[in-house]
Amino acid sequence: MKLERFAKRRRKLIRSLKQLGVDALLVTDFTNVTYLTGFSGDDSFLLIGPQQTVLISDSRYTIQIGEECPDIDAHFRSNRVPIMEATGKLLRKAKPSKLAVESDSLTVAEFEELSKQTKSLEIVPLSGLVETLREIKDSTEIASIREAVRMAEQGFAVIRASLVGRMSELEAAHELEHSMRKFGATRAGFDPIVAVGARAALPHAHPSKVTMETDDFVLFDWGAETADGYRSDLTRVLVTGKISTKLEKIYRVVLKAQLRGIKAIRPGAKGCDVDKAARSVIEKAGYGKRFGHGLGHGIGLKIHEGGRFSPTSETVLKPGMVMTVEPGIYIPGWGGVRIEDDILVTHDGHEVLTSVPKEFEQAVIR
Amino acid sequence: MKLERFAKRRRKLIRSLKQLGVDALLVTDFTNVTYLTGFSGDDSFLLIGPQQTVLISDSRYTIQIGEECPDIDAHFRSNRVPIMEATGKLLRKAKPSKLAVESDSLTVAEFEELSKQTKSLEIVPLSGLVETLREIKDSTEIASIREAVRMAEQGFAVIRASLVGRMSELEAAHELEHSMRKFGATRAGFDPIVAVGARAALPHAHPSKVTMETDDFVLFDWGAETADGYRSDLTRVLVTGKISTKLEKIYRVVLKAQLRGIKAIRPGAKGCDVDKAARSVIEKAGYGKRFGHGLGHGIGLKIHEGGRFSPTSETVLKPGMVMTVEPGIYIPGWGGVRIEDDILVTHDGHEVLTSVPKEFEQAVIR
Repeated sequence: MKLERFAKRRRKLIRSLKQLGVDALLVTDFTNVTYLTGFSGDDSFLLIGPQQTVLISDSRYTIQIGEECPDIDAHFRSNRVPIMEATGKLLRKAKPSKLAVESDSLTVAEFEELSKQTKSLEIVPLSGLVETLREIKDSTEIASIREAVRMAEQGFAVIRASLVGRMSELEAAHELEHSMRKFGATRAGFDPIVAVGARAALPHAHPSKVTMETDDFVLFDWGAETADGYRSDLTRVLVTGKISTKLEKIYRVVLKAQLRGIKAIRPGAKGCDVDKAARSVIEKAGYGKRFGHGLGHGIGLKIHEGGRFSPTSETVLKPGMVMTVEPGIYIPGWGGVRIEDDILVTHDGHEVLTSVPKEFEQAVIR
Repeated sequence: MKLERFAKRRRKLIRSLKQLGVDALLVTDFTNVTYLTGFSGDDSFLLIGPQQTVLISDSRYTIQIGEECPDIDAHFRSNRVPIMEATGKLLRKAKPSKLAVESDSLTVAEFEELSKQTKSLEIVPLSGLVETLREIKDSTEIASIREAVRMAEQGFAVIRASLVGRMSELEAAHELEHSMRKFGATRAGFDPIVAVGARAALPHAHPSKVTMETDDFVLFDWGAETADGYRSDLTRVLVTGKISTKLEKIYRVVLKAQLRGIKAIRPGAKGCDVDKAARSVIEKAGYGKRFGHGLGHGIGLKIHEGGRFSPTSETVLKPGMVMTVEPGIYIPGWGGVRIEDDILVTHDGHEVLTSVPKEFEQAVIR
């Protein structure tokens, strides 16, 4: 039952390989290996094709692979045989006439070694094959992302309740990760951003020793990772001090833009149009130049997956995609506001998976 | 002063490039970029050569690069220009006749794009050039590793004092990371291993819900990461329950092996000989087949850096190398013992940087 979903993904991939006229694909991206097999370790390749599917790993992982993917043939190299040598040996035996490789993951050195190991073999570099499959989440993946959202939200509730003026961004970030772990997360889904006041003007600020009381508001951009590797990604601004008119105005513009963006999400909608729905609100309010990044991205086993909301995005939404919607307004020297939720594309529209309150009044800590 | 060390590394690299007869190197490994510039962000390449050195980054990092490496020319691409396109443009202007690339980091897709962007340019894939420089740590790097050791040891003291029977491996691992952060660590240097009893037989066990009281001993393999990215790596076994004769015997063999290995460390010593010094103790005690991995590895900006202690290692030790020494004995179904410290190679021998007590009596928690 649990294993069937991985088998299904492999069958889908094998159908694509047949259509492309290649005999096998060497999957070298470890996240793609996990997606196709359920194996959660590293340092392993998957050789997959209509004739043969084999996981190429090493003796450290014998027990783990037996537990996590007993339905797959595995080859365990000794630690004296480098992985490309073991792969070459298998390929010389399997003799595919045309082998595809993952060009976004295979390094030049690995490619050279592979070519040396398999002299007469035709090697075809392909990009994004498994990544495209990963864009559409199945029901178990959606359940895992829901879990990641729950962990992130429970952890945030604790940190929201614990905020005090003398707490630094770094302390808050670390406490947040620690809280999410208490609620079951393996770790934070990515290094959390905690940015007080003016520091929130940098979309990718690293938490520092600056304390909450340094300014009147703080931005959190955080998420959790589940045991099976799925992630959530949220952003909220909390008002910890004086409520300025400027902050309230900007906040309401960003929130309105975000709600418009979310509203535009449905199967068939284009990534650039969803971006436009939100961006035009910010532009009309006169802050167009202060929103310098795309509106959102896919999430899953990685925090940035396929699917984009941006002015140039050609993404066409399909049921099962899970996307962030995260408009922001950034004013150097003053600060920034960004509001981010995770949205599932459903058959007849969308479902917002995240539920941390985001009305301005609810952002104010009293 | 602080910047001079990065300039010195770049000068050393440029000398190597001249010797190799290449006009420039495109550094695409982000850790190598950090090592050569001090820039701590991602998504940036360094084009370096006798004629020109330029950091290729994007507008998110303008402020950070101005702060972290003001001595370097930087090119900030807009987020609409992919990094390889920006790199190609710079290369068409700089016109090197022979460009080296890092074959262990550049992907096949990136190589194809680079070739497309710079048609007539001769591209030479090179492996390990910057990594070899990184093997020898300068004084500021050694100071950072000392810091990482301090954070790891202070965090471990807290978890050692807090261990209770109902605590799970996962809780202990998370508390350990949280403690290290309170002592200044950015994060754990790698996912800590906490393995109770039989689970310690897996050299790479993931922390689980198994609790301390399940068996009589627990293995911790952990380290910290400093703000500037340097790491420590230690392993200790704590006896939390009954002291079995078997455990004590195996522990004493591993400790003796480890001390012998450390004793063999001095400039000019070979990696295989240091490995042998430790391994022969374990072999003589009849556990040779139960020690299935190498004796140690270099540490620094990554948890596994150049320099190896193993039966086939050709590493020749030089002053400034920092290496782990970590023999282990693993018995399936029973458990494992590994003891690991971090050792600096000095001009006349070595210095053990780590100081967590490791005599058997001190491993027993009472």
